[in-house]
Amino acid sequence: MGTGDYISAEAAHRVEMPPPQPFINSLRNSLMETFFPDDPFRQFKNQPAPRRFVLALQYFLPILEWAPRYTLSFFKADLLAGITIASLAVPQGISYAKLANLPPILGLYSSFVPPMVYAFMGSSKDVAVGTVAVGSLLTATMIGKEVKATENPALYLHLAFTATFFAGLLMASLGLLRLGFIVDFLSHATIVGFMGGAATVVILQQLKGVLGLDHFTHSTDVISVLRSVFSQFHQWRWESALLGFCFLFYLILTRFISKKRAKLFWISAMAPLVSVILGSLLVYFTHAEKHGVQVIGNLKKGVNPLSVSDLAFGSAYLTTAIKTGIITGVIALAEGIAVGRSFAMFKNYHIDGNKEMIAFGTMNIIGSFTSCYLTTGPFSRSAVNFNAGCKTAVSNIVMALAVMITLLFLTPLFYYTPIVVLSAIIISAMLGLIDYQAAIHLWHVDKYDFAVCMSAYIGVVFGSVETGLMIAVAVSLLRVLLFVVRPKTSVLGNIPDSKIYRSVDQYPTACNVPGILILDIAAPIYFANAEYLRERIVRWIDEEEEKLKASGEISLQYVILNMSAVGSIDTSGISMMDEVKKIIDRRGLKLVLVNPGADVMKKLTKSKIIEKIGNEWIYLTVGEAVSACNYMLHSCKPNYSSDNPETWSSSSNNV
Amino acid sequence: MGTGDYISAEAAHRVEMPPPQPFINSLRNSLMETFFPDDPFRQFKNQPAPRRFVLALQYFLPILEWAPRYTLSFFKADLLAGITIASLAVPQGISYAKLANLPPILGLYSSFVPPMVYAFMGSSKDVAVGTVAVGSLLTATMIGKEVKATENPALYLHLAFTATFFAGLLMASLGLLRLGFIVDFLSHATIVGFMGGAATVVILQQLKGVLGLDHFTHSTDVISVLRSVFSQFHQWRWESALLGFCFLFYLILTRFISKKRAKLFWISAMAPLVSVILGSLLVYFTHAEKHGVQVIGNLKKGVNPLSVSDLAFGSAYLTTAIKTGIITGVIALAEGIAVGRSFAMFKNYHIDGNKEMIAFGTMNIIGSFTSCYLTTGPFSRSAVNFNAGCKTAVSNIVMALAVMITLLFLTPLFYYTPIVVLSAIIISAMLGLIDYQAAIHLWHVDKYDFAVCMSAYIGVVFGSVETGLMIAVAVSLLRVLLFVVRPKTSVLGNIPDSKIYRSVDQYPTACNVPGILILDIAAPIYFANAEYLRERIVRWIDEEEEKLKASGEISLQYVILNMSAVGSIDTSGISMMDEVKKIIDRRGLKLVLVNPGADVMKKLTKSKIIEKIGNEWIYLTVGEAVSACNYMLHSCKPNYSSDNPETWSSSSNNV
Repeated sequence: MGTGDYISAEAAHRVEMPPPQPFINSLRNSLMETFFPDDPFRQFKNQPAPRRFVLALQYFLPILEWAPRYTLSFFKADLLAGITIASLAVPQGISYAKLANLPPILGLYSSFVPPMVYAFMGSSKDVAVGTVAVGSLLTATMIGKEVKATENPALYLHLAFTATFFAGLLMASLGLLRLGFIVDFLSHATIVGFMGGAATVVILQQLKGVLGLDHFTHSTDVISVLRSVFSQFHQWRWESALLGFCFLFYLILTRFISKKRAKLFWISAMAPLVSVILGSLLVYFTHAEKHGVQVIGNLKKGVNPLSVSDLAFGSAYLTTAIKTGIITGVIALAEGIAVGRSFAMFKNYHIDGNKEMIAFGTMNIIGSFTSCYLTTGPFSRSAVNFNAGCKTAVSNIVMALAVMITLLFLTPLFYYTPIVVLSAIIISAMLGLIDYQAAIHLWHVDKYDFAVCMSAYIGVVFGSVETGLMIAVAVSLLRVLLFVVRPKTSVLGNIPDSKIYRSVDQYPTACNVPGILILDIAAPIYFANAEYLRERIVRWIDEEEEKLKASGEISLQYVILNMSAVGSIDTSGISMMDEVKKIIDRRGLKLVLVNPGADVMKKLTKSKIIEKIGNEWIYLTVGEAVSACNYMLHSCKPNYSSDNPETWSSSSNNV
Repeated sequence: MGTGDYISAEAAHRVEMPPPQPFINSLRNSLMETFFPDDPFRQFKNQPAPRRFVLALQYFLPILEWAPRYTLSFFKADLLAGITIASLAVPQGISYAKLANLPPILGLYSSFVPPMVYAFMGSSKDVAVGTVAVGSLLTATMIGKEVKATENPALYLHLAFTATFFAGLLMASLGLLRLGFIVDFLSHATIVGFMGGAATVVILQQLKGVLGLDHFTHSTDVISVLRSVFSQFHQWRWESALLGFCFLFYLILTRFISKKRAKLFWISAMAPLVSVILGSLLVYFTHAEKHGVQVIGNLKKGVNPLSVSDLAFGSAYLTTAIKTGIITGVIALAEGIAVGRSFAMFKNYHIDGNKEMIAFGTMNIIGSFTSCYLTTGPFSRSAVNFNAGCKTAVSNIVMALAVMITLLFLTPLFYYTPIVVLSAIIISAMLGLIDYQAAIHLWHVDKYDFAVCMSAYIGVVFGSVETGLMIAVAVSLLRVLLFVVRPKTSVLGNIPDSKIYRSVDQYPTACNVPGILILDIAAPIYFANAEYLRERIVRWIDEEEEKLKASGEISLQYVILNMSAVGSIDTSGISMMDEVKKIIDRRGLKLVLVNPGADVMKKLTKSKIIEKIGNEWIYLTVGEAVSACNYMLHSCKPNYSSDNPETWSSSSNNV
């Protein structure tokens, strides 16, 4: 054991086992880290019971926390912002409700109750609550597949409420169960592709309104829609189309101006309302409604009627409602959370994702009881809110009150509003969602993310909204799996004039150490990659031996595995290490491990692999391992020069 | 820029960008690594065309490679091994065919053609081909759900052939498409639990034969089976049960003896045949078949009839056949490959998984044309083959010929074989598959793997075989996802008397560096964890600042992120890095990166994050980063002592 002891004496730094921990503790820690990564209980520590109650109440109703600090100057800002978003909310709400094949008045209802609820429960200062185009489209297609809105409008309406209820239930449950991270599985690339695809689909759907068509396909894919549009070529109404393109041009122009100068945000924010007023006046004076320009018609006066008794829990289509609720709920949640987070980043405050989910969920559950359909925090409306200088969620209350006044007194004014103007409003909003620049950026930075994005886009446009979403999530997950299934292994070399070892691919100046092969494994060793890693390590050894044989240099003696980046190992991985050890032994080589982490070290010890490898062959750094191997190589010169690794190994085994 | 330059001059080692590579090259490399990790084309390099043809032929028919080197002494060994496994194959084949609700003769057919095919195409020297209990059970339950073997035996038989065809097609395609790694997703833990569960289920099914029951449930879960058995309490046949227990005791005893002394392997290998002979003689002389002991009855003479025209491609149950084929194919493949690999490990030769799959696939396709059902390389038979000293796949040919002789001349001898003996043979084989010691080992080494194992077992025993398998695969994949979704982050400290930095959890002696927080991120930064990592990093900073504030020590100035273990990053990860940089800036701290890998470095550069962080704040080792920070901390003392990080930061930004 002489030389072995000598080495361990020389290498002062040993790999340590972490202090032992009872199983129950480590289980609790890992559960805590999985479900409470933000440690929400920290503020409750060491507080008296009454204070804890107040804190808990403030957790669920953040308004209690900030209302006492509310000032008049805040209110001035929120009032302005609230009126601005209300002027956007009214025409957008009506448009999106039409898109969802629901009575237009539902768009106004949905901009009254949910923003009120959110103002009390939401933790974002900038999110403006309302309906969204993608959610409306999804409601229309998913429920429309089973029940046609034209044939059975009452059942369709009730299913829409039921779907909203389940969407809310899902959101609130995800938040309460701390499963908010599920939303993170919709990556940025997925969302860019999905939103672009959905916007394309929504724009195509608007061809019905713009061209004044009576019949239209129920499919959303581009091929069915274009076929439907061109087959009715002779029914196109030019009056409607002309009006539509004029308003679309006006809306795009105002958006362009607002983009150029951020201070003029109100020009584009007001544009939809201006369009609605101009369009209505135009129709009123020209009686265009009698010449092929469809108008909204009668809207009921009065605020939201109750709809609790309309929830169709007993319906044969309950599963459709649940499915619609789940899909629209996840999408709406993803948009709402992302919007909240981005604006919080700007203003430097923190958003608790799980708390937001509870807020979104409650607002949709209460919404489904009060004749509202799916709402979330749409990007366009929140951006206007932000630009208008909102300070707190009070702007949502102002908007809700403005919508309430509209509901109580102003609905008759929308009688003459042409539907083509609503289509123009939707198209102009949707054009902003096709973020081709983001797609180009993805292509430049990360080709795989670009592929994810495109598969979402193509899936939505040529298949259906759900198909696109499923494909994109599957492709995204495949990447995570591929990272583990095919982990990177690389040969390390010595950076000149240092004791640092780095990948020779990244550092072409790094030089190999004669007789020693240093491999870096860059992923956890799991069942899914154990077999691959075994084969890959053997292939590295084969290649190194061939190379050395060809060059006639010193033959291979040591294989050093750098385990620094091996975060975890399972029993399949442990068997793999055992096999690698046997293979390396059989070739007369020596296996050396470097820097196994706490988890890896623990499992290798428990399964006795450490014993087999020998504690003296485990080093803390690659540099120390190489020094020890080099020392051995030279002190064992006589054996080495016999050029027979077999005898060399058997003798050195006794060292 | 003075000080900045000074630091970069002092730190001699810079993080480098890998040499640029055209996109198409890196795509080709990563595809090669994904689908051809074993580099099968290596031997074809620099070879003339005729030689390449021979090599390709040898790839698909390995017998061409080893046959020229075959010797007489090899043949002697293979002859002995072949006869031994034939004596096991005949009773086992009949038993398993009964288990699959197929005519018993199919068990013999399946031990004739497939082993012949495997001998030519297989690359394992030890695998002995035959039917397996789990595959037989799965065939019985999955096809039996749609078509009852008792009601429509012809259709049932044809569906079994069709399922075998699709299983073979799947295996061969996976091999040809280089998708063999799919089998690796059945982890060791999954297989232990699944096999144990399946064995339990098979044993429960044997209660029918042992107790001589006429009616039996078609479910496989433990509750249905026990209910069915006890509800027929009064039909239990004690003669049958007594006979069964006697033979079971004999079989278990021989296995115990063989386990104690490996040289006596033939005692347990011959035991099933001995049981069949003894049982048949007993029935013949006592006429027990008239007293409630069921016997096999007539078996057709003659070798496999063709069954090509029986494949039920036009049947209404085609999807059932395809589904059965896929599930049984994957399970059979997993067992066959695992068995081949384990024995290859023992004898130190290499098995090409994809090549084996093509062999297993072809043998099943040809099998389905010649009245065979699903075959693979069962563990028990292969172990006997190995212990009997087989040298090459010729032992499979010997076994096939012995079975052929049985088929041609000896089938009438099985007329009086009692079914209860077959049940005893199955039970004794299955007892060996319940590997409770492996489960205990899993509990000790890796609790999560134990959970995977138990979920597979419970799923199979209380649900169904497919349920158990699906649950176990889902739970296994969840672990891979959890590793990425909740990556480990840890604080690094300085190992005393060194420039080495390691996790303070694992090395309690490691000390924090005042004013510097060093974090290690141990997973790729992907969409699925970007949000978590951002929150976690902020929480680490919060905690560190609180701790420092409480102790009144030097305040936090630098946050060093060690990126060594970050193998990859996507665009969501890049946004996260950007956000972290902004958050850290806003707090008046400085972000320092250490050792980003090639891929990470490339993407951070392309997305301009490196520019924002500043190239001079990226170091090759933690040690160098800490030295530089320490130097700055002390040279900036005046600023630091003003105790205002805000001003400190703005001034140091200009450095």
